[in-house]
Amino acid sequence: MTSAGPPAAFENPDDPGLLAPGWAGSPVASATADTAYLQALLDAEAALTRAQAALDLAPATAAAAVTAAAEAGRFDVRSLAERARAGGNPVIPLVADLTKAVGEEHGPYVHRGATSQDIMDTATMLVAVRALDPVLADLDRTERALARLATEHRDTAMPGRTLTQHAVPTTFGLKAAGWRSLVLDARDRIKAVQDGLPAQLGGAAGTLAAFTAYGARDPQALTAAFARELGLREPLLPWHTLRTPIADLAGCLAFAAGALGKMAVDVLALGRTEIAEVAEGSGGGSSAMPHKANPVRSTLVAAAARRAPQLAATLYGSLAAEDERPAGAWHAEWEPLRDLLRLVGGAARDAAELAEGLRVNADTMREHLGLTHGLIVSERLSAELAPVLGRARAKKLLSELAGRTYAEGRSLRELLAAEPELKDVDLDEPTDPARYTGSAGALTDRALERR
Amino acid sequence: MTSAGPPAAFENPDDPGLLAPGWAGSPVASATADTAYLQALLDAEAALTRAQAALDLAPATAAAAVTAAAEAGRFDVRSLAERARAGGNPVIPLVADLTKAVGEEHGPYVHRGATSQDIMDTATMLVAVRALDPVLADLDRTERALARLATEHRDTAMPGRTLTQHAVPTTFGLKAAGWRSLVLDARDRIKAVQDGLPAQLGGAAGTLAAFTAYGARDPQALTAAFARELGLREPLLPWHTLRTPIADLAGCLAFAAGALGKMAVDVLALGRTEIAEVAEGSGGGSSAMPHKANPVRSTLVAAAARRAPQLAATLYGSLAAEDERPAGAWHAEWEPLRDLLRLVGGAARDAAELAEGLRVNADTMREHLGLTHGLIVSERLSAELAPVLGRARAKKLLSELAGRTYAEGRSLRELLAAEPELKDVDLDEPTDPARYTGSAGALTDRALERR
Amino acid sequence: MTSAGPPAAFENPDDPGLLAPGWAGSPVASATADTAYLQALLDAEAALTRAQAALDLAPATAAAAVTAAAEAGRFDVRSLAERARAGGNPVIPLVADLTKAVGEEHGPYVHRGATSQDIMDTATMLVAVRALDPVLADLDRTERALARLATEHRDTAMPGRTLTQHAVPTTFGLKAAGWRSLVLDARDRIKAVQDGLPAQLGGAAGTLAAFTAYGARDPQALTAAFARELGLREPLLPWHTLRTPIADLAGCLAFAAGALGKMAVDVLALGRTEIAEVAEGSGGGSSAMPHKANPVRSTLVAAAARRAPQLAATLYGSLAAEDERPAGAWHAEWEPLRDLLRLVGGAARDAAELAEGLRVNADTMREHLGLTHGLIVSERLSAELAPVLGRARAKKLLSELAGRTYAEGRSLRELLAAEPELKDVDLDEPTDPARYTGSAGALTDRALERR
Amino acid sequence: MTSAGPPAAFENPDDPGLLAPGWAGSPVASATADTAYLQALLDAEAALTRAQAALDLAPATAAAAVTAAAEAGRFDVRSLAERARAGGNPVIPLVADLTKAVGEEHGPYVHRGATSQDIMDTATMLVAVRALDPVLADLDRTERALARLATEHRDTAMPGRTLTQHAVPTTFGLKAAGWRSLVLDARDRIKAVQDGLPAQLGGAAGTLAAFTAYGARDPQALTAAFARELGLREPLLPWHTLRTPIADLAGCLAFAAGALGKMAVDVLALGRTEIAEVAEGSGGGSSAMPHKANPVRSTLVAAAARRAPQLAATLYGSLAAEDERPAGAWHAEWEPLRDLLRLVGGAARDAAELAEGLRVNADTMREHLGLTHGLIVSERLSAELAPVLGRARAKKLLSELAGRTYAEGRSLRELLAAEPELKDVDLDEPTDPARYTGSAGALTDRALERR
Repeated sequence: MTSAGPPAAFENPDDPGLLAPGWAGSPVASATADTAYLQALLDAEAALTRAQAALDLAPATAAAAVTAAAEAGRFDVRSLAERARAGGNPVIPLVADLTKAVGEEHGPYVHRGATSQDIMDTATMLVAVRALDPVLADLDRTERALARLATEHRDTAMPGRTLTQHAVPTTFGLKAAGWRSLVLDARDRIKAVQDGLPAQLGGAAGTLAAFTAYGARDPQALTAAFARELGLREPLLPWHTLRTPIADLAGCLAFAAGALGKMAVDVLALGRTEIAEVAEGSGGGSSAMPHKANPVRSTLVAAAARRAPQLAATLYGSLAAEDERPAGAWHAEWEPLRDLLRLVGGAARDAAELAEGLRVNADTMREHLGLTHGLIVSERLSAELAPVLGRARAKKLLSELAGRTYAEGRSLRELLAAEPELKDVDLDEPTDPARYTGSAGALTDRALERR
Repeated sequence: MTSAGPPAAFENPDDPGLLAPGWAGSPVASATADTAYLQALLDAEAALTRAQAALDLAPATAAAAVTAAAEAGRFDVRSLAERARAGGNPVIPLVADLTKAVGEEHGPYVHRGATSQDIMDTATMLVAVRALDPVLADLDRTERALARLATEHRDTAMPGRTLTQHAVPTTFGLKAAGWRSLVLDARDRIKAVQDGLPAQLGGAAGTLAAFTAYGARDPQALTAAFARELGLREPLLPWHTLRTPIADLAGCLAFAAGALGKMAVDVLALGRTEIAEVAEGSGGGSSAMPHKANPVRSTLVAAAARRAPQLAATLYGSLAAEDERPAGAWHAEWEPLRDLLRLVGGAARDAAELAEGLRVNADTMREHLGLTHGLIVSERLSAELAPVLGRARAKKLLSELAGRTYAEGRSLRELLAAEPELKDVDLDEPTDPARYTGSAGALTDRALERR
Repeated sequence: MTSAGPPAAFENPDDPGLLAPGWAGSPVASATADTAYLQALLDAEAALTRAQAALDLAPATAAAAVTAAAEAGRFDVRSLAERARAGGNPVIPLVADLTKAVGEEHGPYVHRGATSQDIMDTATMLVAVRALDPVLADLDRTERALARLATEHRDTAMPGRTLTQHAVPTTFGLKAAGWRSLVLDARDRIKAVQDGLPAQLGGAAGTLAAFTAYGARDPQALTAAFARELGLREPLLPWHTLRTPIADLAGCLAFAAGALGKMAVDVLALGRTEIAEVAEGSGGGSSAMPHKANPVRSTLVAAAARRAPQLAATLYGSLAAEDERPAGAWHAEWEPLRDLLRLVGGAARDAAELAEGLRVNADTMREHLGLTHGLIVSERLSAELAPVLGRARAKKLLSELAGRTYAEGRSLRELLAAEPELKDVDLDEPTDPARYTGSAGALTDRALERR
Repeated sequence: MTSAGPPAAFENPDDPGLLAPGWAGSPVASATADTAYLQALLDAEAALTRAQAALDLAPATAAAAVTAAAEAGRFDVRSLAERARAGGNPVIPLVADLTKAVGEEHGPYVHRGATSQDIMDTATMLVAVRALDPVLADLDRTERALARLATEHRDTAMPGRTLTQHAVPTTFGLKAAGWRSLVLDARDRIKAVQDGLPAQLGGAAGTLAAFTAYGARDPQALTAAFARELGLREPLLPWHTLRTPIADLAGCLAFAAGALGKMAVDVLALGRTEIAEVAEGSGGGSSAMPHKANPVRSTLVAAAARRAPQLAATLYGSLAAEDERPAGAWHAEWEPLRDLLRLVGGAARDAAELAEGLRVNADTMREHLGLTHGLIVSERLSAELAPVLGRARAKKLLSELAGRTYAEGRSLRELLAAEPELKDVDLDEPTDPARYTGSAGALTDRALERR
């Protein structure tokens, strides 16, 4: 088969996010757009000239000129993208354009002594730091909403489910507290990584030699000044092929996607038409069925959780980067890292809305505790009847009655009450699923103490 | 640390490809842009109305009206992207806009009986078919260039290398023929998949029921007509959650990226400063070192090969899609599939340029055959001296002389010639690496017969 | 923290599969055990000597001796495993042991002219061919069981579910037919790959040179004879670094895992306590809750489907293998390929048992069609009432009544019947979900025609 | 094609590691063998009974009896593996066997109140803690050896290479210091994770309810006692579906594999026949070429680095675990986590041997500084000649002379010396690559201060 038609010629083949309902339009989307990277590249160049000026390696006027010129809006991002192809990265054409923009006098102080990767890596760190701010804000929103749900439903009993089947009761409070603990784990990991992201400065092969050639007496002081200008950490070593910061980002972002994914898959399961114990605040519509309220937020978070691990794998794979700059491993990082930031940024936004809007049907939960005809408390009855009947007899009786519940459509309590051996035993308490939630309340309280 | 500055507010946070020198500006980039997907979505909608008209389920005027309206340029892709968030896919807002565009009379015939996934999946298939055309064209260019190299260098001897070390001689012709065979394997796999990509039509839950409700007597005939309109294959079943086509695309694209990656990693190794047996036709410049000619094409192909497998993994993972439409697995396919198309499209373009421009330094190859002081033919000498000296003596002698070559800086031939036992043996032939290329020529010939 | 105790010293630190309930004890487990690989390595060595004998490159007695010695039970697999470390692969120590085993006279004809990778790759192909036989058998069992289910439940109506919510009705027959079509897709892909798996023979750098040195006039004939001895395909070229066969295995195995995973996730969803439309024939017990019947088969298949894509990704990643034998990419294939064979082998066994034993609760399915108070047919009513009431009025009425169904606990049919406008309309047919299954039956029939 | 022969029937289809030269026979191999997991499962069961005894929930004699019985050697691991299939995990049959082993009196105190996952997860943590000890020890060995190399070669100049080409000089000391910094990063991340690994105790659905039913007044105290018995951390919440510990292990192990992989790919590149700047202490032999010394240690480490990221991806993917115990996500963790421990354990062993045995050819490094005819210092000359000649003239001159170096086979120094404009300029210093290593020495010193 040949193509069903000629490929359309589009003037502007850009991507505003038609395939990305998960992150399009989010704060992270703009913080990671090509123009945001362009601005970060320019910020890095300007900071480098300023740092050199601070160390008397460049005139203050050059620093001012580069800083003034370093506005993304003044550059043609599409042209840069296309010219990036020749040398394999966008810094090369950008340096040419920026040098031209600042004029002949200041041009020599643009990018002086630096290598493309110094600027690209530094810009990547800037973008990451900036993009993680709204992520952290949305994780905070999520955490607060979940704390409220956990508090409110501390004692809302519901079926605990294992391998898809009712096991023993739990509470919705404990479930929400568990979701929250994952959100806090994600927040802590992201915050720790964000705080440590370093500037990159090493020159062509990471020795800082060119800066010496241009007169720096203490090139490491230049690195420090450069990092300070940008609010990034000063690295111990140039890290062109020591990619710890990238791997750390991969790890915390894959973690965050999965952590939010847990809540999403739970909401999807509990919101099934037959279960309906929870519902998204405002479900999405369907193009074919007007009545449907789809769990769109959970769906998009779940989709992000499916994709993030493999993107992180690519970044972990780039740790094995040969030489002083690798031929491929570095280039393979750029898009996956941005994708991860976007997926997690979008997922955090959706998770916040999901948590804030979640409708919890406590009555349905309670009602479902009865679906197994009382077998949901058989574990407790095993424990409590053993001293009364003897362990073997208790087990045998329960096993026999369990078989009869489904067959006869009667509850275990009803069948137990009919047993003469048990006529003096109070069955109310041990057969009430709502009273078999163990330490769920106490665990919830403890979990909520964590900040 | 808080962010080093406020996130910039950008009017148009789109991505023309600043982070993507591997595919920005390529034919596949425009064939997979958001606007290309938008056009494909519109093509699918128009084809559906036309197919219904063909079966007397809609007026011909409606079909004409929808077809006329179905031009991407008339819709606001950014707005669609943002409104896609509510329902989790872009078809919902697009149907609203298209219905409005065709006016009240024809509106009812837009998307009639279909579900979002019918349109989205069909559009994805259209985009894939269209994007694979330039991929196949570039694979053909690559294959032809490699055939030429293999022919030209059929007898150009060079060191064969295993685990980074010289092993025995091979030829550059055989190497190029091997690259070509992978390119042909990729072409065959892509072509087979492209030929089989099906339209999607099933309605809300894949039963085609709505089409019956709207009067279709044979809804499967509608599917056939719909597929025919688009030049896609008619599916045996609606495949909303039977994702064979997506998995097949994943497989052939991951294969193609790796197949091209093999050539790239070879060129990177053979082009190292110390080896310099090959060089890219026009290396990329460096921002810091004017003399450097970087193997940019190979680097970008190698980067694609590092990323593709994990993207394919996400798509394979989406096979396990629950129900009649899954909550996440489907949504997780969209961007990774496009990314794969782009990576392979860009890599095929770079591979074609790489193969067409590759400079082969046959003299350097020949020269390197001597780097091991002749040990590169020790395997042959073991075989040939055994009948002369006895197996044990031959082995012992070679082992002893091998030790002496590096120590004394003399060649194995020289040392052998000094051995009285061998004074009557012709050493010219068996010690000439260029004459120990085995069946390399014949294998090259055979491989080139494949079309 | 230091370890909670000293690592135990175990005499035999082997793995019979304690962590692998998915595949332990299966036919594929034994077909892929270390001893199976050992036997395949020996089979390859013996076939090589026999092929050489057939071409008069070795005495028939040597071929007989090597063949006789080539029994896994005569070698110490643990010792081989440990000695493999020195050279990085098990062939090196095995050749030493096998050479010794055949004695001084025949020793020279062991492994003559071959390289480790010739034997290792060939053995891997043998293991794959052998392991795929039981996989295919279990896929056949699965397919037959699903055909039976699809036939039997051709007209068993049930809710179609999209994004976890009831959408419109479908049938269990169509669902089973869909599962079956994926199983057939998996079978076809595996069979095609199995049929094409080639022997490997190239010598040290893939030129077949050593065989010439040992007297072969037509080394390609040796390759053909070698392949014939083993029932493998003759390769066009030595494929030491042209890894199409490995990638093809990766693709078909990842596909199979996902294809079976689809059935598994459906069974898991439909078997939830609240849904209970299907149940595994014999659920697994729980250590804590005697009454639980866990969907263990589906769980293990679903687990395999989660792991396979990433294993395949590693194999696709190994396509980019530098030189004539790569330093790492090859070694990274061995365990992941075996893991894939095992996962798919175990999943196929579990899928067969799952399909054969699946209990389908048609009554529950029918009952669930009523859970949405009739809204599950609102799509149909939209279509059918439009001609009666006018499109706008029909839409408005349905939307209003839909809101009332849940609020008032009444069915859509009931509310419609109370509408004076509709007093002459027959509501029985259009409000019966079981009569809104569209082409489900016809599609099922068509799908079952495929063999 | 049907199989080339009947699958062999093996008595003991176990895996001592024939396909795993990377980790077979290592301390981590025994620490992660099936028997090691079995022992850890038994340790967990025994600790649970002891913890209950400490809280007066079980007789001390029962605790003693269970502890005495809890020896892996007394159980049949193969039988357990096979029986694990029924319920989907090995704890169920193990509890049966252990209960039987301790006799009727103490049997009731085995596994009392616990769920399979409590024991399985706790055992997994024990295995991880134990397996990480030798990993950390080998990372320490590696770090020390690299510190020695960095110190010794602080001023050994060598070509810095970017995108495979010589860029500017660097030192081997800085390279070794960089490798060491990654090893320290890996050590820190692993140590932090190891210190935080928690015991698991929650009962059937994570509420600790059964322990209350069996009389515990403060079940959280039981968790604390249980953790204490095992030297694990007390968890804040039962983490059956809050998989932070697993994800943290995934992250630090994928990091470690990649960190070691960086050293491996560098050694592979620098050890190529043409480069030979480094060599492994004892290369591995080849089955076909007696003279070859293969970089086997680096190869195996590089192979591990290729596999680890995808295994980690599977574990990150399991974070999205539904309900109180997921049907698949949990089961998909077991083997990949063990594989990761083994890969990293084996890689750390190989890395230690690699670092300790690495031979560094400083003379070759120095010699290679001249391979670009002096262009390796063109960056410096640009900087230093600009003040002398004017920026434009300097650039023009260097560009012209660069072109002549390769063409005329003369060095840049030679050509510069012939320029009349430069007759008064001292060219010795700026054209000596060994004197253009910038801050390499100072950076090495600083990096070595880190402990």
